[in-house]
Amino acid sequence: MGNGQSVNAAKRQSLRKLTDIISPVPADIDVAQRRTIAAACGLAEDDYEPYGRYKAKVSERVASRKTDTTSGGRGGYYVVVAGINPTPLGEGKSTTTIGLAQAMGAHLERPTVACIRQPSMGPTFGIKGGAAGGGYSQVIPMEEMNLHLTGDIHAIGAANNLLAAARVFHELTQKDEALFDRLCPKGKDGKRGAFAKSMRGRLERLGLGHKRDDADALTTEERAKFARLDIDRERISWRRVVDMNDRFLRKITIGQSDTEKGFTRETGFDITVASEIMAVLAMTTSMEDMERRLGAMVVAPDVCGNPVTADDLGVTGALLALMKDAIKPTLMQTLEGTPVLVHAGPFANIASGNSSVIADQIGLSMVGEGGFVLTEAGFGADIGLEKFMHLKCRSSGLKPHAAVIVATVRALKLHGGGPAVTPGKPLAEAYTREDVELVKKGVANLTRHVENTKKFGVPVVVALNVFPSDTAEEHEAIRAAAIAAGADDCVLCTHHAEGGKGATKLGEAVAAACEKNKDAEEFKLLYPDSMGIKEKISKIACELYRAKDVSFSEQAEEKIAMFTAQGFASLPICMAKTQYSFSHDANLKGAPSGFTLPIGDLRCSAGAGFIVPLVGAFPTIPGLPTRPAYYEISVDTKTDRVVGLS
Amino acid sequence: MGNGQSVNAAKRQSLRKLTDIISPVPADIDVAQRRTIAAACGLAEDDYEPYGRYKAKVSERVASRKTDTTSGGRGGYYVVVAGINPTPLGEGKSTTTIGLAQAMGAHLERPTVACIRQPSMGPTFGIKGGAAGGGYSQVIPMEEMNLHLTGDIHAIGAANNLLAAARVFHELTQKDEALFDRLCPKGKDGKRGAFAKSMRGRLERLGLGHKRDDADALTTEERAKFARLDIDRERISWRRVVDMNDRFLRKITIGQSDTEKGFTRETGFDITVASEIMAVLAMTTSMEDMERRLGAMVVAPDVCGNPVTADDLGVTGALLALMKDAIKPTLMQTLEGTPVLVHAGPFANIASGNSSVIADQIGLSMVGEGGFVLTEAGFGADIGLEKFMHLKCRSSGLKPHAAVIVATVRALKLHGGGPAVTPGKPLAEAYTREDVELVKKGVANLTRHVENTKKFGVPVVVALNVFPSDTAEEHEAIRAAAIAAGADDCVLCTHHAEGGKGATKLGEAVAAACEKNKDAEEFKLLYPDSMGIKEKISKIACELYRAKDVSFSEQAEEKIAMFTAQGFASLPICMAKTQYSFSHDANLKGAPSGFTLPIGDLRCSAGAGFIVPLVGAFPTIPGLPTRPAYYEISVDTKTDRVVGLS
Repeated sequence: MGNGQSVNAAKRQSLRKLTDIISPVPADIDVAQRRTIAAACGLAEDDYEPYGRYKAKVSERVASRKTDTTSGGRGGYYVVVAGINPTPLGEGKSTTTIGLAQAMGAHLERPTVACIRQPSMGPTFGIKGGAAGGGYSQVIPMEEMNLHLTGDIHAIGAANNLLAAARVFHELTQKDEALFDRLCPKGKDGKRGAFAKSMRGRLERLGLGHKRDDADALTTEERAKFARLDIDRERISWRRVVDMNDRFLRKITIGQSDTEKGFTRETGFDITVASEIMAVLAMTTSMEDMERRLGAMVVAPDVCGNPVTADDLGVTGALLALMKDAIKPTLMQTLEGTPVLVHAGPFANIASGNSSVIADQIGLSMVGEGGFVLTEAGFGADIGLEKFMHLKCRSSGLKPHAAVIVATVRALKLHGGGPAVTPGKPLAEAYTREDVELVKKGVANLTRHVENTKKFGVPVVVALNVFPSDTAEEHEAIRAAAIAAGADDCVLCTHHAEGGKGATKLGEAVAAACEKNKDAEEFKLLYPDSMGIKEKISKIACELYRAKDVSFSEQAEEKIAMFTAQGFASLPICMAKTQYSFSHDANLKGAPSGFTLPIGDLRCSAGAGFIVPLVGAFPTIPGLPTRPAYYEISVDTKTDRVVGLS
Repeated sequence: MGNGQSVNAAKRQSLRKLTDIISPVPADIDVAQRRTIAAACGLAEDDYEPYGRYKAKVSERVASRKTDTTSGGRGGYYVVVAGINPTPLGEGKSTTTIGLAQAMGAHLERPTVACIRQPSMGPTFGIKGGAAGGGYSQVIPMEEMNLHLTGDIHAIGAANNLLAAARVFHELTQKDEALFDRLCPKGKDGKRGAFAKSMRGRLERLGLGHKRDDADALTTEERAKFARLDIDRERISWRRVVDMNDRFLRKITIGQSDTEKGFTRETGFDITVASEIMAVLAMTTSMEDMERRLGAMVVAPDVCGNPVTADDLGVTGALLALMKDAIKPTLMQTLEGTPVLVHAGPFANIASGNSSVIADQIGLSMVGEGGFVLTEAGFGADIGLEKFMHLKCRSSGLKPHAAVIVATVRALKLHGGGPAVTPGKPLAEAYTREDVELVKKGVANLTRHVENTKKFGVPVVVALNVFPSDTAEEHEAIRAAAIAAGADDCVLCTHHAEGGKGATKLGEAVAAACEKNKDAEEFKLLYPDSMGIKEKISKIACELYRAKDVSFSEQAEEKIAMFTAQGFASLPICMAKTQYSFSHDANLKGAPSGFTLPIGDLRCSAGAGFIVPLVGAFPTIPGLPTRPAYYEISVDTKTDRVVGLS
């Protein structure tokens, strides 16, 4: 084993063995509720605060602290866990992240932290998800993870909706001078005095920074310029959010009460995890950095096309106050006592969908040299891992030492052309008996993800999440194809049924890949900041998705022109695309190519720091199925325990 | 002193003296941040969970436990704190509740718990509020209290909006049999098996309870009856909520995306604290009781006029899971170490606006015999205290031993006809120099509240919250009128500047009033359950508001007929009325009478357990002013401390 073995003994003190495995695997929540939170993983008392009995929030300041338990002050190995394009069968990416953490932390005794995302309650009550893992590879208590956790998503919702509510109405109903008088009222001495701190950003941008200490010094013209934002009401891009699958809010008309004087407008809600503020949380590195990002968020262009920001609205500080606890990742543990940091959100299709930079940095500082941080990237590697590389690593400067790509026999059969899978209906025979040919057809989905990941200069280990109906020949077909595509290894895992013990071989393969790639020297991004918006989109579409070209709607062309004129062309790209295919068409399974990728519209997340092209048209808030998961969820009022989550 | 002195010495161990008062009073947040949370007030370790360093959640199970430190297992004295009709000047009701708690707990050394409401973030970022008290009478840390606290309001928002999103869409797009097939899918064996637990309530109500273990046993007709709720889409009463002052959401049209197939509908948002689920939280006594109440909430009538409930939607258990932590009150402390339980929400004008029954019960159990629970009732006594009596005490069976009514010289001057007060503009001279005649005119507002409170058989102590510009003659005018109206006492207090020391005389008067009224024998409600809806409304309007009669709009008449037909006529009344006047007209200051109270509409909160008449028409979600409080709020990124809250 590597030199990680000999260091950080103190950090392993909280690790406990799984001694009471029950077979068959009981319902997820029953396993989860047996354990209590790990000790504080070497963090000082000031570094964290308890939130209930089983979770704690870790100060974001730990992120900038290098571990002092190693000679060079160097952090641990950085491993991203991604998957093939998902199917309704479930591939077990979260379960593998947790199982691997249990294997490395509890069985291989390497200091390990898993960094995963807080689930959205939309899917929790809609189509059941399992964001806490499953079986004997779980974060506990899973019911706390799947419900409010420590309130980060609620904080994002509140901040998003405060910005949505901010000063549009009064601008519509008041003259310049009245507006200025109310924004900068005179004091008892008849003088206005200095501008509020929250107004200084706008003053600076208007070239009036030198008058910040005396609001009376502004000329009539300057007062109008300062007070009136002149928001283009037809082009307000900031939407409201709710953390529920409420499809009726996708497109709405607001302002229809008489009290709003007929200022109606069409808009819509997104699911909270798709808010730019979630992306800000995922990308930020400190409280100062978050303040800057929140202030830079654009709500609309003004009538001249200039961006109007949260800073212009004077609301940046309030947003920061709402987010001051959300910036702290939540510390939980696996069933086997491995520390887990839960932070940021899912939905890599319409959001960044990765755990946060801060959580990863804290994890690297916690494990120290020779330890491992396993960070989860949402959905298939085409979106989750691509965003991990181009957005997260670009922003943080961190380099991954290895990538894990999770696949299953059943899902690859579906990619190979197997019959459609409908939730609630019995599974077709193709998925429960051997069909090596079908696997060989579908494995193209996996091999393309392996090839794509290698383009970033990162070694790949394939984790083959074993199901009881799989056969050895099916496994071998996958292994051969994965190795041929350039994977370092392809390892069978049984952590769902066996806990960390079922993923020790995977852990060894991951450790070996990292130790061979100590300095991550070959890591590279596929496009530079300086490339234009269209060229960046084409790069991702053609090189990773294997489209033959990209088409842009008229609306998309207009937005690209506007964002370029506004100075945002140097931002990287966060694609909003279906997770079910490399292409824009969810039905194109396997490894499609030669298609034209249609860009219907774009949004600009200037605070998070990226441009979001909407590939095709798909809703940014999901709907509920006819029989949602909420039918099963309840509380046992005798014990106050939540039942029915999965 | 009473026998409370000699008992519960252990419970006082956490009390600490305020030793470092600074004059002049610094900005609220600076005082607040100096202290840390009190020890756990005699609660066992299992009774509470920490939430961050300065607050904890107390198990709702403590509410049903009688304190065992006293001979008879009897709880403490129960005191409600209310006010005159509020004015823009601020009367200091919360500040007086906290100052009085500090006086009784820290100075008079009587075991005391204050029960106050969690503030809504709407006003926190809108017009600054001060829900944590002010000056040297504060709950700390006030920035945690004023922001997310322990997430109760977020949980209410999530539950409210899950219910709003629940199964309406699929009912519109599917035939009976398809709907039934999806709700009760066949298993692998081709059989449907038992109904989910969440479906049993509806089965019972349909007279199909005997078939609960075999969904296949239903006839085609019974399947249709079970699966189709037949919600009357024109009369859906359940609205969505957001905890922000977002006026543009007052009236909206939803469902305008193509994916919703043109099923558009007009609806609106309320502020979260006005959700029926907040009222359920305020009224409930246990997890079982909350389950029953949540399930009984009505979302709409069906096309035949029968109520469709959360139980019918199968979502009760999920709502309960979302609310399982919110049912636990948050334990904080005052600046002088007196325990404070924060629970339920404000807005007594459009909601119940009182702290919760559970928090009061826990407080009574914590302080034990001879101790005091001070519970706050929102806004003026005409709405907050009336609801405390008729809703909370009716539901809990608890009897108050005394009431405190808070008044100020300045506010009574406004009620006497003093000039209008505009936030941000300098105060008129009438409020800063002596004007005994103006006070004598305005004191009618106070004396009517005193008289009204006495009608419930509860002794009243008037707390006169002193301002530096008051004069002794003004005080004496108020005192004389209060005593003449039947108050036990009228006491000057200076707790804002002096902390608990400034309210010890008030504390002694409250203790004396309670001790004279040990058994609260004369306590009575003003109307019985059996009275009709109209008669109950008239009783409150004529006897307490002093209206000459009540008018009902056509819509109101229809609703009363429907609610009566649905069997809800026995519920008590929760008036939605302006807080600024005894009447429906905010401009009628002082003690108006002889008016006709107009009832424009009614809502039914069948789960919370009351009928809500809307007096006149006023918005159930506030708007932001031109210069909202959010301009001042921020985080000092050097220290992570919130600044600018007040």
